[in-house]
Amino acid sequence: MPSKVRIALDAMGGDVGAAVVIPGAAISLGRHRETEFVLVGDRAKIEPELEKHPALKAASRIVHTDVAVSMEDKPSQALRRGRKTSSMWLAIDAVKKGEADVAISAGNTGALMAMARFHLRTLPGVDRPAITAVWPTMRGDTVVLDLGATIGGDAHHLVSLAVMGAAMASVLFNKPRPTVGLLNIGVEEIKGHEEIREAAEILRAMNLPQLDYIGFVEGDGISKGLADVIVTEGFNGNIALKAAEGTARQIAALLRDEMRRSWMSRIGYLFARRAFQTLRERMDPNKSNGGVFLGLNGVVVKSHGGTNAEGFAYAIDVGYEMVKFDLLNKINQMLNRDGGALSSAPTAQEAVS
Amino acid sequence: MPSKVRIALDAMGGDVGAAVVIPGAAISLGRHRETEFVLVGDRAKIEPELEKHPALKAASRIVHTDVAVSMEDKPSQALRRGRKTSSMWLAIDAVKKGEADVAISAGNTGALMAMARFHLRTLPGVDRPAITAVWPTMRGDTVVLDLGATIGGDAHHLVSLAVMGAAMASVLFNKPRPTVGLLNIGVEEIKGHEEIREAAEILRAMNLPQLDYIGFVEGDGISKGLADVIVTEGFNGNIALKAAEGTARQIAALLRDEMRRSWMSRIGYLFARRAFQTLRERMDPNKSNGGVFLGLNGVVVKSHGGTNAEGFAYAIDVGYEMVKFDLLNKINQMLNRDGGALSSAPTAQEAVS
Repeated sequence: MPSKVRIALDAMGGDVGAAVVIPGAAISLGRHRETEFVLVGDRAKIEPELEKHPALKAASRIVHTDVAVSMEDKPSQALRRGRKTSSMWLAIDAVKKGEADVAISAGNTGALMAMARFHLRTLPGVDRPAITAVWPTMRGDTVVLDLGATIGGDAHHLVSLAVMGAAMASVLFNKPRPTVGLLNIGVEEIKGHEEIREAAEILRAMNLPQLDYIGFVEGDGISKGLADVIVTEGFNGNIALKAAEGTARQIAALLRDEMRRSWMSRIGYLFARRAFQTLRERMDPNKSNGGVFLGLNGVVVKSHGGTNAEGFAYAIDVGYEMVKFDLLNKINQMLNRDGGALSSAPTAQEAVS
Repeated sequence: MPSKVRIALDAMGGDVGAAVVIPGAAISLGRHRETEFVLVGDRAKIEPELEKHPALKAASRIVHTDVAVSMEDKPSQALRRGRKTSSMWLAIDAVKKGEADVAISAGNTGALMAMARFHLRTLPGVDRPAITAVWPTMRGDTVVLDLGATIGGDAHHLVSLAVMGAAMASVLFNKPRPTVGLLNIGVEEIKGHEEIREAAEILRAMNLPQLDYIGFVEGDGISKGLADVIVTEGFNGNIALKAAEGTARQIAALLRDEMRRSWMSRIGYLFARRAFQTLRERMDPNKSNGGVFLGLNGVVVKSHGGTNAEGFAYAIDVGYEMVKFDLLNKINQMLNRDGGALSSAPTAQEAVS
């Protein structure tokens, strides 16, 4: 475990850039004093922000560039235009060169994944990376993946997601053998998605020491906290996450409107405001900000593009924890345990078919 | 439009059966006096319930059977064991014979769809049916389909879902040209799911008079009410619906806990209880009960299996409205308008490729 956690920030990413990234870094530094920052972006915009935060300034160095990846760029455009020059690339490059332990960006997700994959490459045994988030549930937190890095994928891909997700959950939740469920729909006997049933058979047959496969979980099983890790391919994971986020925002808006509608409810709100405060904090989308890219030779965290400084600070906290808990080495250990969890999957597949 | 709406109820469906179905029918009859019921199930269980509801008794006839489809039966088992004999089959059969305008069951979804499809057959131009629900959003209601009838499917299938969903939305929302969006994830340039992009091209090229195609909608766009109709294949639709339902239940539980935590918040709750009541009603899962099966030669409505009488009454109301507004004929008209919206799709596809 490194004594200092070195974090490279894309100071041009997101809807706002340095004016959110720098104050966000200052908030996170207040929580974790042993952090050092590499701030990548336009020096003319970073320096005035840094002047407001002397402690951060003392813990940072600037890598100047004025090339930013646009939120509208397609991944291939971003790679073509921004490789070796953009703030996003250079933040990842700091990880590649060993100058930082993690890179964090609020920029364009597709571009960030494309650059991270191109420059860092996937871990041995992993074909395709994943985006992971920690989802608050009725029974604590759940690691959900993939949230959109990879669309589709065979049973082997789902099994590798299960192994990577379990590694992350065991690190975050301090559980030696986290439970893992595969996202599926209720009806058992249905055409399509044979890869999910096949992945279930493989996971059951492998009976890995590092994860406890518990079966299929339906869409509402995520909120119920039925497993420590929920595995799905990226399209579904993205739709599920956003449908849930949308519903939470809808209910929050409804609640706000109703509490303002009459003087009785306004008085009620005053009495119960501590309860509402707690509810707001527990539902705060900022707090679940920070999608971790798994499966790469390096840790990259994606923050929401539209977040504020508080939200960006949470994304930095996520990156900090990943480094502090040595996520990458633990994933590698899990992938290679018992002669390689993933390379033994095809054998298991033959064994059960 | 028929003067009487004739509704066949599977009185053995759901977790409880007649003890929920009969009181549910009585509630719905109170709202719509011009309803007649065909109650299919075990006479020994139906009659005692009917004695408590004289008005319903006067508006009902019983078709006796003691064969029930179990909630655990696979669709093929249900068809094998329950064809021609089970309460589920006989309720559908009443629609097939023209003795009822709609069949409603709280039974096993897979079995209900299999029987409905086997016995009623799909509409001309429709290859595969869909399950549709009305989703409450920030801007009124949205028709979402498919929620799990069909897994996967090509661009043509998505286009037929768009046409059927638009027909339902125009009936329910009284809009001549409802807006339609295709559920997709944000990243434009991504591998996989070419059928969604192809469906978008077809819908744009067809420029149908009965629907206004507005483009891709992300998972949180459903709650935002970005379109009158949101189209997706059944696996995703099912996961999205259940993820959203799970989130709503999670927040409701959190809110309940917080309001009980201190005497201050309890007092606040008392003052604001009308606001909470409104919120509870607007979030009531019973009220969005009733998944409509579209694309069949007959209307079938699926109620949640675990619903209470109030919830089952809402499912009956949905069936009532579908008949009252002549959904089936309107869908047929839309499908056949301008020489057949669906049969012209392949031509449009060639035109844009």
